[in-house]
Amino acid sequence: MDLNIGVIGTGEIGADHARRLTAHVAGARVGAVFDVDSGRAAKLAAEVGATAHTTAFGLIDDTGVDAILIAAPSPVHADLTIAAIAARKPVFCEKPLAPSSEECIRVMEAESAAGTRLVQVGFMRRYDEGYERVKGAIDDGSIGDVLLAHCIHRNAQAPPSFKSEMLLTDSVIHEIDVARWLLSEELVAVTVLAGRASPLAPENLLDPQLVLLEAASGAVVDIEIFVNCQYGYDVRCEVVGSLGTASLDAPSTGKLTTAGYRREPVPPGWKGRFGQAYRDELQQWVKGVRDGALSGPSSFDGYAATAVAEACVKSLQTGERVTVSLSTSQWARDAS
Amino acid sequence: MDLNIGVIGTGEIGADHARRLTAHVAGARVGAVFDVDSGRAAKLAAEVGATAHTTAFGLIDDTGVDAILIAAPSPVHADLTIAAIAARKPVFCEKPLAPSSEECIRVMEAESAAGTRLVQVGFMRRYDEGYERVKGAIDDGSIGDVLLAHCIHRNAQAPPSFKSEMLLTDSVIHEIDVARWLLSEELVAVTVLAGRASPLAPENLLDPQLVLLEAASGAVVDIEIFVNCQYGYDVRCEVVGSLGTASLDAPSTGKLTTAGYRREPVPPGWKGRFGQAYRDELQQWVKGVRDGALSGPSSFDGYAATAVAEACVKSLQTGERVTVSLSTSQWARDAS
Amino acid sequence: MDLNIGVIGTGEIGADHARRLTAHVAGARVGAVFDVDSGRAAKLAAEVGATAHTTAFGLIDDTGVDAILIAAPSPVHADLTIAAIAARKPVFCEKPLAPSSEECIRVMEAESAAGTRLVQVGFMRRYDEGYERVKGAIDDGSIGDVLLAHCIHRNAQAPPSFKSEMLLTDSVIHEIDVARWLLSEELVAVTVLAGRASPLAPENLLDPQLVLLEAASGAVVDIEIFVNCQYGYDVRCEVVGSLGTASLDAPSTGKLTTAGYRREPVPPGWKGRFGQAYRDELQQWVKGVRDGALSGPSSFDGYAATAVAEACVKSLQTGERVTVSLSTSQWARDAS
Amino acid sequence: MDLNIGVIGTGEIGADHARRLTAHVAGARVGAVFDVDSGRAAKLAAEVGATAHTTAFGLIDDTGVDAILIAAPSPVHADLTIAAIAARKPVFCEKPLAPSSEECIRVMEAESAAGTRLVQVGFMRRYDEGYERVKGAIDDGSIGDVLLAHCIHRNAQAPPSFKSEMLLTDSVIHEIDVARWLLSEELVAVTVLAGRASPLAPENLLDPQLVLLEAASGAVVDIEIFVNCQYGYDVRCEVVGSLGTASLDAPSTGKLTTAGYRREPVPPGWKGRFGQAYRDELQQWVKGVRDGALSGPSSFDGYAATAVAEACVKSLQTGERVTVSLSTSQWARDAS
Repeated sequence: MDLNIGVIGTGEIGADHARRLTAHVAGARVGAVFDVDSGRAAKLAAEVGATAHTTAFGLIDDTGVDAILIAAPSPVHADLTIAAIAARKPVFCEKPLAPSSEECIRVMEAESAAGTRLVQVGFMRRYDEGYERVKGAIDDGSIGDVLLAHCIHRNAQAPPSFKSEMLLTDSVIHEIDVARWLLSEELVAVTVLAGRASPLAPENLLDPQLVLLEAASGAVVDIEIFVNCQYGYDVRCEVVGSLGTASLDAPSTGKLTTAGYRREPVPPGWKGRFGQAYRDELQQWVKGVRDGALSGPSSFDGYAATAVAEACVKSLQTGERVTVSLSTSQWARDAS
Repeated sequence: MDLNIGVIGTGEIGADHARRLTAHVAGARVGAVFDVDSGRAAKLAAEVGATAHTTAFGLIDDTGVDAILIAAPSPVHADLTIAAIAARKPVFCEKPLAPSSEECIRVMEAESAAGTRLVQVGFMRRYDEGYERVKGAIDDGSIGDVLLAHCIHRNAQAPPSFKSEMLLTDSVIHEIDVARWLLSEELVAVTVLAGRASPLAPENLLDPQLVLLEAASGAVVDIEIFVNCQYGYDVRCEVVGSLGTASLDAPSTGKLTTAGYRREPVPPGWKGRFGQAYRDELQQWVKGVRDGALSGPSSFDGYAATAVAEACVKSLQTGERVTVSLSTSQWARDAS
Repeated sequence: MDLNIGVIGTGEIGADHARRLTAHVAGARVGAVFDVDSGRAAKLAAEVGATAHTTAFGLIDDTGVDAILIAAPSPVHADLTIAAIAARKPVFCEKPLAPSSEECIRVMEAESAAGTRLVQVGFMRRYDEGYERVKGAIDDGSIGDVLLAHCIHRNAQAPPSFKSEMLLTDSVIHEIDVARWLLSEELVAVTVLAGRASPLAPENLLDPQLVLLEAASGAVVDIEIFVNCQYGYDVRCEVVGSLGTASLDAPSTGKLTTAGYRREPVPPGWKGRFGQAYRDELQQWVKGVRDGALSGPSSFDGYAATAVAEACVKSLQTGERVTVSLSTSQWARDAS
Repeated sequence: MDLNIGVIGTGEIGADHARRLTAHVAGARVGAVFDVDSGRAAKLAAEVGATAHTTAFGLIDDTGVDAILIAAPSPVHADLTIAAIAARKPVFCEKPLAPSSEECIRVMEAESAAGTRLVQVGFMRRYDEGYERVKGAIDDGSIGDVLLAHCIHRNAQAPPSFKSEMLLTDSVIHEIDVARWLLSEELVAVTVLAGRASPLAPENLLDPQLVLLEAASGAVVDIEIFVNCQYGYDVRCEVVGSLGTASLDAPSTGKLTTAGYRREPVPPGWKGRFGQAYRDELQQWVKGVRDGALSGPSSFDGYAATAVAEACVKSLQTGERVTVSLSTSQWARDAS
């Protein structure tokens, strides 16, 4: 029987996930949806053949629903995730797990009390083929010990509502997770530097920013975040080891040569760039739920990313280097 | 309800398709399998949760089976496809539709008599993102009128059983379909030239070969087929138009830089190279069957490809340019 | 003392060579120039500090002139080269050595009678860093035995005076020389195929054309020549060996990423593309002359290229495969 | 008449320059050389046809010598350059102009007192075709206002004598000059961060290091310097503007595809990577001297680069951000 998934939050990301689960993921169907905008929920329900619930908690407690996907606004992530845990249902929560590390800790404690792993956080980049190759080159020793990593994260335009802190909490949080995952270690200090703002960014938005993450080993990860770069969505990185480097570029499938130039398109947005990753993320989650063996980013990963992003915000506000103290370390936990 | 698919032929390709349908395709399950090697069929049946049938025709007639996927050896493709048509079941037949154009015509006639489209042929390259971009650049006028196309098709090693004609019937047939699809016109003449054979190819195998396909418009497609190139699986093309060119390269996601070189892996085989295309091919087929609207390569496409491949074999044997006469043209048919 | 060079022919190519010798080549100066357009000659003479002669033969016989560079129209190449040989002066003759193989033979005979090597032909591609790397990969065994080569030669636009045969005699002749040089063997047969003409080429111009060159070993070189491709000057090749391939692409130094595309410029013309090769060609010639040890393309190379181009013209006119018979072979001569 | 150049310092770089001037630069010859190792000087003198002097000042005062090239150790750069200025001879001084900004100021004052421009500093990257394209894309407005630049500078191995400060004074000084030149503005503050040292770097060498340069406009340039990266010599940069980016990569001329990889060589060292730049640098200098119009990096450029490198050393030693105060600004001077 297909896994019956309830989707909470039917905005752009939630609706996309629901469509993906319906049209591209084996072994799952979307049986229930909820959104505070009931019209939007009803429309999606009709499209994917689901029932629209009138409350999120009602959906979670619906005995027909096997697993929960949360794509509601970040402030309610923790409460909803904890409710799903209370119902002992596997829950996929979009990033961030919660806006504050305190809330993330509440989620971890709830999951820990449940005595079984139930939470996966939506850091889809771990499922991107390009990132997987970089990870492979690190893990198989091809590039030696990791010393540095250079990351770039650019969006063509940010929504008008974007604030300077959101470059860190909403965008750089992806690089934070990627850095922890690629380097297999925790980040211990951060420094954020806002240099010259783009004249095309909204007034008062500190864009671009440079972020330095220091890992426990001393390895340093620098990140350019620029959310009004105009030309497209561009995510790249190069990990520098003692023997060589492994890089991620925009995927290329060929070239168009006309009018004096040989060129390749830059994807306009994250949906095109990470479409395969989103699909594989959900497929692996569904498989993990059905097999009783979740393997994706955990609540701890969600917590650690939020904690580091909090430190980044503090650094941006103070202009100082800020240290990060996690309650424990993923790698310490895994080793224990 | 999921589409219940019966898979005939559980060798490498059939088993891969069955696994893909099970693990990666929404809306489908493999409920029945058959293979002349009953042990192999039983093993796959256990793996994907299907019933192993004792005859192919029994599987086709099984009322629980909604649609048929044929991955049996080519010589039985036509008979099995015609049996599926007789049962009025949608049928996905691996390429080639049949080894001879006469058999392909029999399939077309059977489908025509059934009064509805039921057949799709497994030319998966049409679902590759890189090829789709090339097609897009042609169709939107970016490169002007198509004048030439240069294609390369290389395998690291061919099986020992590979014969000189099979470079054309088993390998070049992909480029033949791609050429028809990209150019939106029929191929009218072919010339095959076997030059210097690789010392690493088996004795008496004419490998590599150069193939020239002439389209109705006069556009010429040249193809290198080389099935013992040693270094990997490499499929590329460049379509040359009056305003520019569109090319397909091996997909790239980044680079590894060590020991004096910056490098990218060449996929070892077709499974890695066209993994995404195989998935999308089956997903689209399943969706097309469920929606009653098949859109993939048709029986006519299968027939045309086989007819051109037959001409290539004749050219290889005679050393002459050979013209191709189709019973009609796809594009004429579509326009009527 | 600097080598005093006399330049015959001060059109675009001759003037460029004179300027290069003056501004970029060590150990040489242009002391004399001649052109049938005496005004044009006088202007260049003033620019580079040379004397303008009133006849080509006067320039050749000027005792102050140490070496001759011929950039006059092709029909007078042979007579001028023979005159320089008669004066026992080293002579650099732009390609082609002569429009007909009979004239080339006359040059070879004159040089042979002189008893010393005096002639170099202007096949500058042999000095291009990219081609040198391809040659290196062949000669060091990296790609095994050469089986095939694919070449592309595109110009944005051809002059209005360009005739269909000139695609072969003026443009493909570069690929003919490159093929002989890369493969270290002679070409024995050619086939030219004119397919669909570009609607943007002048009426009656067969453009593009496909050329197949067969080497003595059986290796086949295919060449696309397209002199009205619109988008730029594009010269590429891929040599396919039994172990791998070596390719030449347009040189790349970086990318410009704006407005949805990551792109690299295609050079507009041959001057930009082969600027470094032209300089190195002349520098090596000057050094060879001064050291008494010429090493560049010889009169035999000029003869062989013209002979193969003649066969190509015949193939274009007859539609047939045409065999090439050289009076002897470079490689046979070198081995003797 | 050829410019008669005296070369002081005949170690690796000086000898290379002398050979380049002799074999590849028009309008110049090396007539005199000096080195404290008189045997080394004599050997080079014999090779290039020069006279070996017994003192550097004797060479400078030799009335037959028209211009001076200084490739002696850095500590004597300033004194030798000032001596050449005193002799009113044009002088090309290898980078750095001097190890301290005080010495650079002395050179500037001497040149200023001479009342004419006489000094060029050997920042050869400004003559590299790839950098010139990046500069062009900035100056023509293609990428909008410059906001950031990311630079990478890697050597396979540093000499055993290399100290942690030398990564800044000997290597990063190139990026400092490039940053000033590309951005057309002065650098006002620097921060150096030494993270995790490579286990393959000599003990106690802080390698790699991350350098942040802040420009007057607020634009930030980050630089990775890593002089024991093992795999080759790799210099890259990407300049990020408000409309797009312009990047410099290792030059590419084609690919070698064998054994599962498509690859391009990384140059082993700076000589191969910047060979064309070194030639063009010297050719332009010789032309500038002959035309009485020097245009390359000036003594002020040499001073500014040294001043910023000094600040970098201080930052490395203190761990603090260090501001830079130039006596004036190039751009202010140019504008006046």
